[in-house]
Order: sequence, then structure tokens, then C-alpha cells
Amino acid sequence: MIPRYSRKEMAAIWEPASRFQIWLEIEAHACDAQAALGVIPAAAAAAVWERGRFEVERIDAIEQETKHDVIAFLTNLAEHVGPEARFVHQGMTSSDVLDTCLAVQLTRASDLLLADIDRVLAALKRRAIEHKGTPCIGRSHGIHAEPITFGLKLASFYAEWQRNRSRLAAARAEVATCALSGAVGTYANLDPAVERHVAEKLGLTIEPISTQVIPRDRHAMFFATLGVLASSIERLAIEIRHLQRTEVREAEEYFSPGQKGSSAMPHKRNPILAENLTGLARMVRAAVVPALENVALWHERDISHSSVERFIAPDATITLDFALARLAGVIDHLVVYPDAMAANLHRLKGLVHSERVLLALTQHGMSREDAYRAVQRAAAAVWRGETDFRSALAADAEVAGVLTDATIAALFDEAHYFRHVDYVFERVFADGA
Amino acid sequence: MIPRYSRKEMAAIWEPASRFQIWLEIEAHACDAQAALGVIPAAAAAAVWERGRFEVERIDAIEQETKHDVIAFLTNLAEHVGPEARFVHQGMTSSDVLDTCLAVQLTRASDLLLADIDRVLAALKRRAIEHKGTPCIGRSHGIHAEPITFGLKLASFYAEWQRNRSRLAAARAEVATCALSGAVGTYANLDPAVERHVAEKLGLTIEPISTQVIPRDRHAMFFATLGVLASSIERLAIEIRHLQRTEVREAEEYFSPGQKGSSAMPHKRNPILAENLTGLARMVRAAVVPALENVALWHERDISHSSVERFIAPDATITLDFALARLAGVIDHLVVYPDAMAANLHRLKGLVHSERVLLALTQHGMSREDAYRAVQRAAAAVWRGETDFRSALAADAEVAGVLTDATIAALFDEAHYFRHVDYVFERVFADGA
Amino acid sequence: MIPRYSRKEMAAIWEPASRFQIWLEIEAHACDAQAALGVIPAAAAAAVWERGRFEVERIDAIEQETKHDVIAFLTNLAEHVGPEARFVHQGMTSSDVLDTCLAVQLTRASDLLLADIDRVLAALKRRAIEHKGTPCIGRSHGIHAEPITFGLKLASFYAEWQRNRSRLAAARAEVATCALSGAVGTYANLDPAVERHVAEKLGLTIEPISTQVIPRDRHAMFFATLGVLASSIERLAIEIRHLQRTEVREAEEYFSPGQKGSSAMPHKRNPILAENLTGLARMVRAAVVPALENVALWHERDISHSSVERFIAPDATITLDFALARLAGVIDHLVVYPDAMAANLHRLKGLVHSERVLLALTQHGMSREDAYRAVQRAAAAVWRGETDFRSALAADAEVAGVLTDATIAALFDEAHYFRHVDYVFERVFADGA
Amino acid sequence: MIPRYSRKEMAAIWEPASRFQIWLEIEAHACDAQAALGVIPAAAAAAVWERGRFEVERIDAIEQETKHDVIAFLTNLAEHVGPEARFVHQGMTSSDVLDTCLAVQLTRASDLLLADIDRVLAALKRRAIEHKGTPCIGRSHGIHAEPITFGLKLASFYAEWQRNRSRLAAARAEVATCALSGAVGTYANLDPAVERHVAEKLGLTIEPISTQVIPRDRHAMFFATLGVLASSIERLAIEIRHLQRTEVREAEEYFSPGQKGSSAMPHKRNPILAENLTGLARMVRAAVVPALENVALWHERDISHSSVERFIAPDATITLDFALARLAGVIDHLVVYPDAMAANLHRLKGLVHSERVLLALTQHGMSREDAYRAVQRAAAAVWRGETDFRSALAADAEVAGVLTDATIAALFDEAHYFRHVDYVFERVFADGA
Repeated sequence: MIPRYSRKEMAAIWEPASRFQIWLEIEAHACDAQAALGVIPAAAAAAVWERGRFEVERIDAIEQETKHDVIAFLTNLAEHVGPEARFVHQGMTSSDVLDTCLAVQLTRASDLLLADIDRVLAALKRRAIEHKGTPCIGRSHGIHAEPITFGLKLASFYAEWQRNRSRLAAARAEVATCALSGAVGTYANLDPAVERHVAEKLGLTIEPISTQVIPRDRHAMFFATLGVLASSIERLAIEIRHLQRTEVREAEEYFSPGQKGSSAMPHKRNPILAENLTGLARMVRAAVVPALENVALWHERDISHSSVERFIAPDATITLDFALARLAGVIDHLVVYPDAMAANLHRLKGLVHSERVLLALTQHGMSREDAYRAVQRAAAAVWRGETDFRSALAADAEVAGVLTDATIAALFDEAHYFRHVDYVFERVFADGA
Repeated sequence: MIPRYSRKEMAAIWEPASRFQIWLEIEAHACDAQAALGVIPAAAAAAVWERGRFEVERIDAIEQETKHDVIAFLTNLAEHVGPEARFVHQGMTSSDVLDTCLAVQLTRASDLLLADIDRVLAALKRRAIEHKGTPCIGRSHGIHAEPITFGLKLASFYAEWQRNRSRLAAARAEVATCALSGAVGTYANLDPAVERHVAEKLGLTIEPISTQVIPRDRHAMFFATLGVLASSIERLAIEIRHLQRTEVREAEEYFSPGQKGSSAMPHKRNPILAENLTGLARMVRAAVVPALENVALWHERDISHSSVERFIAPDATITLDFALARLAGVIDHLVVYPDAMAANLHRLKGLVHSERVLLALTQHGMSREDAYRAVQRAAAAVWRGETDFRSALAADAEVAGVLTDATIAALFDEAHYFRHVDYVFERVFADGA
Repeated sequence: MIPRYSRKEMAAIWEPASRFQIWLEIEAHACDAQAALGVIPAAAAAAVWERGRFEVERIDAIEQETKHDVIAFLTNLAEHVGPEARFVHQGMTSSDVLDTCLAVQLTRASDLLLADIDRVLAALKRRAIEHKGTPCIGRSHGIHAEPITFGLKLASFYAEWQRNRSRLAAARAEVATCALSGAVGTYANLDPAVERHVAEKLGLTIEPISTQVIPRDRHAMFFATLGVLASSIERLAIEIRHLQRTEVREAEEYFSPGQKGSSAMPHKRNPILAENLTGLARMVRAAVVPALENVALWHERDISHSSVERFIAPDATITLDFALARLAGVIDHLVVYPDAMAANLHRLKGLVHSERVLLALTQHGMSREDAYRAVQRAAAAVWRGETDFRSALAADAEVAGVLTDATIAALFDEAHYFRHVDYVFERVFADGA
Repeated sequence: MIPRYSRKEMAAIWEPASRFQIWLEIEAHACDAQAALGVIPAAAAAAVWERGRFEVERIDAIEQETKHDVIAFLTNLAEHVGPEARFVHQGMTSSDVLDTCLAVQLTRASDLLLADIDRVLAALKRRAIEHKGTPCIGRSHGIHAEPITFGLKLASFYAEWQRNRSRLAAARAEVATCALSGAVGTYANLDPAVERHVAEKLGLTIEPISTQVIPRDRHAMFFATLGVLASSIERLAIEIRHLQRTEVREAEEYFSPGQKGSSAMPHKRNPILAENLTGLARMVRAAVVPALENVALWHERDISHSSVERFIAPDATITLDFALARLAGVIDHLVVYPDAMAANLHRLKGLVHSERVLLALTQHGMSREDAYRAVQRAAAAVWRGETDFRSALAADAEVAGVLTDATIAALFDEAHYFRHVDYVFERVFADGA
């Protein structure tokens, strides 16, 4: 966790005190269920709620000796609860506490991330609608292709983040399970009713079958999903970086008063937020492979996954939360230059209408291959800087033999490209924008 | 694609002829829709179905010159269709064909993989029920923990593969979309009705908004899901490798007549299938990172994803298909040794009942900490090889002061651990095993 | 291996016949050494050289039964050699053959790759010298920074590929070892002299200690190094893609006669080779993680690495070979537009000289902070499109109070930025360009 | 960075104060060189050394406004140095400071890691020599193969770590470069003599050509190398985990007084350190892919690498340092059970001598194929639990027809396998153990 790239609410989920608090609640809820079953005295369960407390530093000190964190916690807890503490954790194994706690933390983290995505979606929707009709060039391979609108570009990201929202919701469900099944998952000394009670209290579903641990394919799926989200962040960040590059300059990140772009060159205004998002995306993705490697635990479990999760669970969620918040801000405050978009749109002197000319030629009876060659030939002259496309076409005997000047002129009408924008917007913003 | 690790039906999906056949059908369906709209003559659409053919080698030859595969295909197609060919591909861009074709291939591949999983599930279920009551030791950290049954172990894998089946079904839906939206996704020269028609004919859903390509977050999610499945294969493979190792030998891969285990040592019988699955899992996972890196295409697309997908789409699906089929076979033919399981179960001379003694002591009034120390002390003598656990407990004044011999004896009853096996089986095989 | 992305010489290394031929030579050399030691008859060794042959299909057929490739090979070999074949492979284990063969293949592959790098280096050097004095803008964050020359840009890649050459040479040495140490590396039934002989004949060094296999940290290092080379390819490919994008267009991939850029838009000329290299780089990198996962084999070996290497050894080397050859071609034929470079250089209307103005102000006594604010203020007016930078500075009272018009004019001299180009070229091309 | 997995000295390298102190020294050394060149007053250089100070919190506060860390640092520095501060950082760009600082930090980190490796090597060597003659079974595929000694096993790891030491030394050299070349690497406003001076003072070599940054292929190579080291840790950790598993129990991690293995089962003694190392290895490896993705910066640099390095530079080095220290401790204190090794060695009732019988049969004239079948047939009876191997061979007419009882008995001599142990030890510990 890097303070520079973390936000308070998400970071709080992963603080030691939060973890121990969840452990305490799991143990206390379990005691309630055990008392209801008559396995332990009701007074013992009550005592845990009443006197149950812990001190992070004390737990750390005990762990130095026991080399076992849950035992250290239980020992510290017993110091507060007193003799009734012997009824705590009855029939449970450490992983019952640890894994159920992780489920609580990951679902809380997911809820924050879902809210983050909602902000990204809101920003994208607002700006997409704002620029629904702002013409700009569509580019494939970095080369001008045909006109689109800036709103369409943003709508494509909106649709992607709608998908990401669904994916994250599914990933949340994957990890939102509770297991209190004892040493190796047999409920040998713990009635399944305890698990049911704790699951209900914590808003989790029951793990149908666990070994000593909740199976790690669930967590692998969770972090793999975060990796996909990170790649979507990267795509949007790279789009912005492209739009801001000096030769394009169709949009810019907001540059605040007092901000400085370079220690050497005072003129600099760099897309540093989008570049930062590109790097953060790499880091969120870096959690995917270790999470996949964590699945194949030995027999009923080994503990190799534990250190990995101590890193990636906080790091990936905190970093992604920060990145999504930053992304929403970048979109919200993006400075858009429609004039520059319009200027760039005409930079290729009409070449971007080549498809329409091709189609018109075939519609007038020319074979696809001949039409292609003719249009490409005319385009080559424009690429060489000798002329504009309309003149080149007019000057081409083969083309001019088929298409009149007026026909060609009509093919250069930009409005043609925007006929279906409304339709696409309806599909994307079907929820009623 | 490695012939050694590929099966015929899956490999066929990825052969050039299959791809071009799908291309042909996409173009022909599109022509039908265009004809219905009156954009092209009905006769042209009919001609494509009637005379549309291709030769893989001819396409390759044309591509040498054009350096563009779809144009090469269209040129070859035109050689067969004749003048009406100029009405083919009207308003479409290459990616409309390529990406929709990939959707068809990935969904067909998914269907094979889903069937593979069904075979894995069937094998796991059959063997789990067969060994529902076969006692064996549960191990955490590779160290004997408490008794389970071999059926429970298999049931845990069954539940994991049920999850994997759902994940793959979701991943299939992710990539099962059709986009025929023209050069940069604006339908500038192609009515959206064409897309709807082709999607319906191919059993795909409509991509709500595409750029020049179907967005690659979909494919990233698909391959990330395959990576999770691969890790599940690895977990099961490693379990089998552990069970077969000489000192454990509770189960063995089937060793066929004529099989040889080592060129040097004729006595060898190695779990080579499970080891092979471990390696294949790594390879399927290797597709995840490039798929994630493919998402951030520049602007309305670049073509960097293309070469990656030429590798990973066949490689990951073919390898996973092969691995799943092999896995199902390994499970089906696994030779299980219940006697060895029973022998291993008693190897630690009763230590595996330590939790029950701990709980009994606390139930009799001892603090958790004192009880733990007493039991651990008795266990240490067993670890040192001096005695068995029951004797050690009887010889311990502190324990003997609380628990009678008879009480201790009752705690060593193995049946105790299997009380909830039926309950867990019901949860896992809820569909009525 | 994808035919589309493979070259003949490299692919030949990985063909089954090549592998079996190397196996044959290893066995035959080993027999020579065994004969010299008197372990086997000299006539037996001679027989292997004389009558030793194999048929790929026959080996495959035998392997169907034995499920062991080396035994299948030996059986086929024995069919040709006759009774003396019983002296072949004496004291050896399959991995002695397999791993030493892999060493031969990887070193041969490395030699091709080193030659590929030499071609990349030659192309970079030639073009760097050609454009040593061609001014263009240096960009950080995609934003114009200060002038450089196009030759400097290429020289930076040249230096990177010099490093890559050294890295690959080191990686080649890592995997160029021979192990003939028997079943688990003890030379139990094989004198170390045999290993020494075979190593010498094959141009390999001796593995100081092997288990059943040559340790896989060597191969991990090899593939990790290929991954670094791939990233360097990506950097150069992305540079070219940026330079070719429509708004920049300072350089272009060669566009051959007959080439077509888009099925829909005949005007397109796309940097498809550089985009392809970007994707291929991802695939070469995809070998790194599985190679790292291959290191931790169980005890004296398991066979999980084998299937991984059957994929990545050919795939990564063939793909990298293809990519390097393509890269050299792209550089060699890159069409460079110095005029466009010059035009872009002036696009920011003098802003790129902001550092020099800042330094002049501080040299004239202004604090860094005040000078920065003054220059940034003047620059802001230029960014807003109101003026050019020199006018803005002249109009700024604070600046004008310190720097005269003539001083400012002198600061806008472009030659100033190129004073050290010769010096840098000397450092980079120290070998005498 | 996870406190639980970090050691003080390595963590200190990455603290903000350490970074700023290095920045200060870079700027001060540069001022010395600038003063020597007459570019700035000698008094200004002296002032930086005399009055140069910084406060981490103040820098953070300034960065909130400037959004630029180096400018924030320089501003804070100027608050202490006074007017002469305007001569600081003249002609330099932020990356000159940042990248050279990173070089200093990574080389310091490398030095600690090299010392860590030396401790691992010392522990391995000591234990290898201690157990040079301790017989144990060599295993391939987890199945007993032939006898080795435990010392040989450890020697194999020793050789691997010797290689790792060389690799890390090479990786250290890769990143130990200094670049002070100005805004985009042209030395436009900074004489190369400044770079030479700073490099010498900091013990770095000069970067032959930089863009705005030191090229990131260097760092990619560095982190890729750490990834290989991590995989070697994993291999050793997994070996120990295997040796400690209950059925094998040939070695155990030291279990300290007061240590507790499980909250539920007091008898547990788990190889938690080795399991932890397995997980930590995954995390160190997780840095490799983002480091590879960092190479392809745009043009003369973008800043996407920065956030990645803020994570992976501390995380990977701190985690690896911790893991290596833990690994050395595990080896040093490993409890070895030679009796258990001996017992396991005989578990397969002589089968492990099958190769020697095979060879003897071929030496006596039997074909390899016939001999193999005979030995495999005898072995099958042992696998079925019907007999021991020597009896099975004696009972086999085909074998008994060729080999006498006495000959067979001689083939079961274990000493045979250890004849070359001295030779291998000499090769591995050539430095004179």
C-alpha cells in the first residue's frame, strides 16, 4: 500500500484493527450460535460481546512467541473476557475466522469499488451526452479513418464500464461466502448451524464445501476480474494521453492553478494523471498471476496463499479504488477542444471519405477490385501532398467516368456519418439518459 | 498448437478453412439483409450463397501481395462469385468479419469446453459417491490434521468445477456478440438491420457499441476465466501427484499394459498425466496477461491484438480442452487404495485427535491456554517417537486429572468425524445424486 | 508456432526430426566415450554411427504404447542398429538426452537470434548516422519538450539493442550446458568422462551438478531475457506507430505496391508491421511466467516443465526471430519525413525554449521560483492561442525587465540543442561508426 | 511493503527521507561540477552543502499545490539555502535526479541482497558438507528412483544460488548508471562533465545515452532477475515442505518453544516458514510483468513507469531480502532425520535398484527391450505387495537364467551410488570447501 495512491475509506478496511474487529464479531456470533445449541453457556457468549476487546500491539507481542496470529488474538481476547474465554473458538479452526473475515473485507471493498464505478459511469454519461454531436475523427491504427462524434467515443467507454460493473458484482458474489467448518471442513466439532448463523449475521452466503479454507478459485476469479477492470482503465487513460499529445490536442486534463509540469521546462502541461493511471493499471493487473498461483493449495490447505493475500488484497483494492476515483475526476474535468477536433477532422483533405467513394463506384457497376485501385490511386496523390481528395478524384479519368462532380460532393457530406448516433446512444444508455 | 496436446474437434474450429467458411457465411448473411433492405440486388445475395467458395492456398497467395487477409479472401471469393461480388462486404469493415468470426469460434470452443467440464463433473461425482465413506486423513500444511473421507475430498473438487462451469458459461456470453457496424462503428454505410440479421443467424447477441472492433475487455474476461479453470486443474493434478508419491501411495494413475515409466529404471510408475496437467495449466494461464494487455487498443482500434489472438485463441482453448479430457480420464481410472488410506490415518498414533482432547479439557473447565499447553506437551512425546498419543495423555497428570481413560478413549472414535458427511454431500450434490 | 509468424531456419531447429537427430548424436557420442572406457564394445559404438537411424512416424507409433518418448526412440533405433543396441543409453536417463538436446536447440536458436540482433543493430546504426543531424522535437509525456535529432532517437534504440545483445549472449551461456549424470544425477552407472566427451563434442559446458534434470533456473533466466528483448521491440514499435499517426506523420512504414490498408477505406496506410510487433512482443513475454513457474520441480524432478517447454521453447524463439527480422526490415525501409519533423518542431510557437529562458532569468538574478512563474505565465498565453512565445516574453514586464529582446532571440537558437550530439554518438557507437 | 515481511536495513533505503537525502547529494554534487565549470558561483555550490536541508512533510505540502515532487523538493530546499538556490538544478531535469537516485537505491538494495545470498550459500554449504554422506532416496515424479545423499541435494541448491549470485551481480550492474543529461537527454544546458562528476561521486557508471530517463530495459532486466531468484526460493521451500510432510518426515523446520501450530489442533507442527517463502516468491515474481510493461515508454518518456516503480522497487527488494534471510535461517536450523531417510530408502523393498539389474542383463547379452520387460515384470510383483524385489528377481526364470543370486546381491549394494559424490562436491564447491 502506497499512501500516495490510497484513499481513506478503502485503506481503513485493511487496517489491523478492522481485521481484528471482524474476527471478534465472527467469534462472538459463533458463540451465540453455540450457546443456542447448548454447546457453551449463554453467559459465555454474552461475556464475549460484553468484555471482548483487543489491543493490536498486544496481539503482535503474543504472536512473536506463538508464531500464530489467531492464537495470539484469542489469547489477548481471553485476557479481557476471562475464564469464559475457553468457550470461544470451540470447534473452529483459524481459517474459519481468517477466511470469513477476508470475505467481509473483500465484499466491503467491492462495495466501495462499485460506488467508484458508478461515479465513472456518471461522468462518462454526462460527458458523452454533452458531446453526442461533437464531430471528431475516428482513427484506426492511429490513422484517420472516418468521422465519429466525441460522444460516441465516450459512449463506448460507458458501455465497457457497464460491463465492468456487472463483472465486479459477480466477482463480489464469488468471494462473499462464509465457512465455519472446523479443522478440515468436516464440522467434526462444530454444528453447521453455527456457520449458518454467522453467515446470516455477516451478510454472506454459506460455502457449500470447504477444506480447511474457503477454496481459492473464488479469490482467483475476484482478482482476475480486477485485472480486467484495470485494463479498461488503461484503455481510457491511453485515449486521453493520445488526445492530449501536442500534435493532436483535442482534449486536456485539467491543469490547476499553481500546478507545474516540469522542473526544467515551465511550458509543460502533461497528462500526468492518465499516465499515472496507466501505471496503476499495471499494478492492479500484477495481482492476477499470484492469485491464480494461489489456487493449487496442497491437500486440505497449505498457507502459501496467506502472504500473497496480505499483499494483493489491500494493494489491488486500494490501488483500484484510487485509480477509479482519479479516473472519474479526469473525465469530469477533461477540457475538450471541439475546434481542434474539427480541424483535425479535415487534416487529410477529404481522404476520410474514401469508403463512400468506393461504395459509390461499386454501386455504379465497377468491380470491387477496380474501384479499390482507382480510389487508392487518387488517395496516393493526396498522401504525396499534391492535391486534395476531391480534386484527385475529379482528375481521375476512371472515377470521373462513373461519378459526377455533384455525386462526389455529396459523398463528402459529414452528416452522413452521424445518422445512427441516436440509435447507438439509445442502445448504450437504455436506462433512460 | 502442439499436436500432442490437441484433440480433433477443438482443433478443427481453428483451422483456416473453418475460419474462411465462417467469413463466407457472415458475408452471405449480410448480403441477404442488404438485399432485403434494397441496398443490393437479391440476385447478388443469392449468387454469394450459390457460387461462394474459397481456396485457402489462393487466399494466402493473394495476401502475399495485399498484406490484408480479408481483402485476399474477398478477392478470392470474387473470382468465384463473379461481377455480383462487388455487392459483397458493402459498408462493412474487415473487423466486422474477423471479430464476429472470432465470436463464433470462441462460442463453439466454449461449448466443447462446457461438455468437457461435464465429463469432469460426472467423473468426480461418481468417484465421490463411491468413496463417500472411505476414511482418509485430512492434511493441512502437508501435516496430518483430522480424518475426512476420500469422497469429501472429491466433493470439494466437484463443487469447484460446478463454479467453473458457471464461470465458463458467463465467459461464453461475454464473447458471444456480433458487430457489423462499419469502419469505425458508426453504421455510416451499413444499416443496423444487417447486424441484427447476422447476429440472429449466428446465434449471437448484438454488440451495443463497437469501435472498429468488438471491445477487447470481453476477450480479456474470457481468457482470464480460462486461467482460473487452469488453476483448478492444477489443484486437482497436484492432489493426485501427492497421493501417488511413494510414501503416501493412497491413489495412483492407471498404468496401462506396455507403459514404461523410465528409460533407466524399469520399476518406475509415475503420475505423468497429473504432472503433464500441471504444466498445461501453466500454459493456459499464460494467455491471461497478453489478453489483458490487448484491451487498451489505440483510439478506435489498432491491430496489436490480432497476432496475440492468433496464438492464444487456439492455444488456450485447444490446450484446455485436451487437459480437461485428460483430467476426466485420470479421475475415471484413478486406482484408489483404501487400505493405504487407513494405514496412513493411523501413522501419527492418535495425534490427529488432539482437537477433541483440547475441547474436552476446556469443556471440563480448563482454560484454553492451559489445555493447549497440556495437549501440546503430550503430543511432543509422540512426535519424539516415545509413545502413542493416548498413552501420553494418560501419563500426563494434568490431563488425567480432568479426563478419565474412558473419556479419552471415546475422543478417539473416528466415526465422530464423519457425522456431517451426508449433510455436506447434500449441499454439494443438491441436484439429486 | 504460427506459420505466419515463423521463419524457416528457426522453425527447422524445432522440428521432430531435428530433435531426434540430436538425440541420436548424443547417444552415439556417449557410446564412443563408453567404448573408450571399456564399458561397451567399440563395435557397438561404431554400429550406432553406422546403422543408427530413426523414423518419426515409427517413434510416434511406439510411444502410443510405451507412453515414453525416449524409450520409443531407443526402440526404433534398436530396430536399425540390431543387437548392439543394448549398449546404447547405458547408465543414462531420458533427461540426459532430453535436456542436453534442449541445450543444443536453445544455443542454436540463440545464435540465430544474435544474428537477428546484429541486423537490427546495423539498421539502427545506418539510419542513426543518416539522421544524426535531422532536427525533430523531443517529447516527454507526449508533449513537446525540447529539440533533439532523429539520429539521437535512433541511437538510443541502438544502445538498448547493444545491451540486449549482451543479455542474450549471457542467456545463451546459461542454457549451454550438458548433463549426462544418470537417473538422479549421481553418475551411479555412468562415468563422468562420458559427460565430458559429449559436452565437448556438442560445444557445451558441463553442468556442475544436476538432479535428474538440468536445473530450470537456467531456462527461467533464458526466457526472462527473451521477455526483456520483447519489451525493447515493443518500445521501438510504439515509437514508429506514434511517428506515423496522422497528426504527427514524421515517418512511415514502407507501403509496398499492391498493398492494401483496409477493406473498407482505400485511403488507409497503417503501421501494421509495428502494430504486429507490439502484439508479438506480448507473446514472447507470455513465456516468462510459465518459465519462472517451471523452476520449482519436486525433489529430483517432476515432468511438469516438459509440456511448458514444448510450447515456449519453439514459440518464443520462433516468434522472437520473426519479430527481430521484421523489426530490422521496418527500420531499414522506414520512410522518414524531415520536413514534417521540422514543421512539428515549430508547432508550439517557441514554447520549447522555455527552459533556456528560465535559466537565463536565474542567471540574471531572479529566484528559481519567480523565474518559473514568469515563464509559465508567458507560456500560458501561448497555450491559449493568443500569441507566440517570444512575443509573450517580450510583453511580460517582469521578463522584459531582465532580458533584452536580443538576449531572448539568442535563446531561441536551435543549434544550441545539438552541441553534444557528436559526443553522444561517440559514446554510443564507440566501436568506430 | 508489509511490515511483517520487511527488515529494517532494506526498508530504510526506501524511506522518503533516504530518497530526499540522495536527491540533495545529487544536486549538491552537480553544483560542485557546475561551479568547477564556472557555470555557477562556487559560493552557491558551497551554500547547498552548508545549508541544504529538507523536511519531508513540507515537501509533501508543497507537492499538493505543484503536483510535482522534484519541484516541491527544490522549493523546500530553496527555503533553506536562500537566493543561491537559483543555481541549483541548472540545466537538469527531474528525471536526472529521480533516475540517478533510483540507481543509488537499487544498487544499495542489491548489496544487501548479495549479502543475503552469501548467508544462504554459507548455510547450504555447511549443511551440504554435514550431510555429504547421509543416504536418502532420490525421487523423480515423487516416486522413489535411486539413492543419493542429502548432501548432494543441498549441493544442487548451492550451485543454483551461486548462479543466482552472479545473476544478481549482473543485474546490479545493469541499473548502476547515472544520467544527468537534461530535459530530453541532449545536455542542452548541462555539460556532460557534470554527469561524469556525479557518477563518480555516487559510484555509478555513466548512461551512454538517455532520453529524458534512464532506459527501462535496465530495470526490466533487474526485476526479471529477481523473479528468477524468487523461483529458486520456491524450489527450495517446496523441497522442505515435501521432506516435512507427515508420510516423509525426513526433515523439519525448527519448532521453537512456545510456538503453536494450529488454533484447533495442538499437535500440529507445520512447515509454515517454507510455505510462507512459497507465497513470498509469488509476490517477488509479480514484479516482473509490470517491469516488462514499463519498458515501452512513449517517445522520450512518459511517466507511467513511475507509479509502478513506487510499488515494485521497495516491495520486490524488501520482500526478497526478508525471504532470503528467512531462507538462510530455515536451512541453518533445519532438523534433519537421517534415520527416517534410511527407512524411506528401503520402503520400496529394493525396487530402487532396478536400473542396475537392467544394465547387468544387457551386459550379459539380453536385448534392452527384453531386459526391460523382465525387470518391469519382477517389479510389478513388488508393487502389488507380493514380495521384495530381490526375491522377485530370483523367482523370475528369465532373470535367474542370466544373473546368479550373488550377482543380484552385489547389484543391491548402496555404496555403489555414492562413488562420485566426492567428485561432484569438488565441482560444486571448487572454491575450496
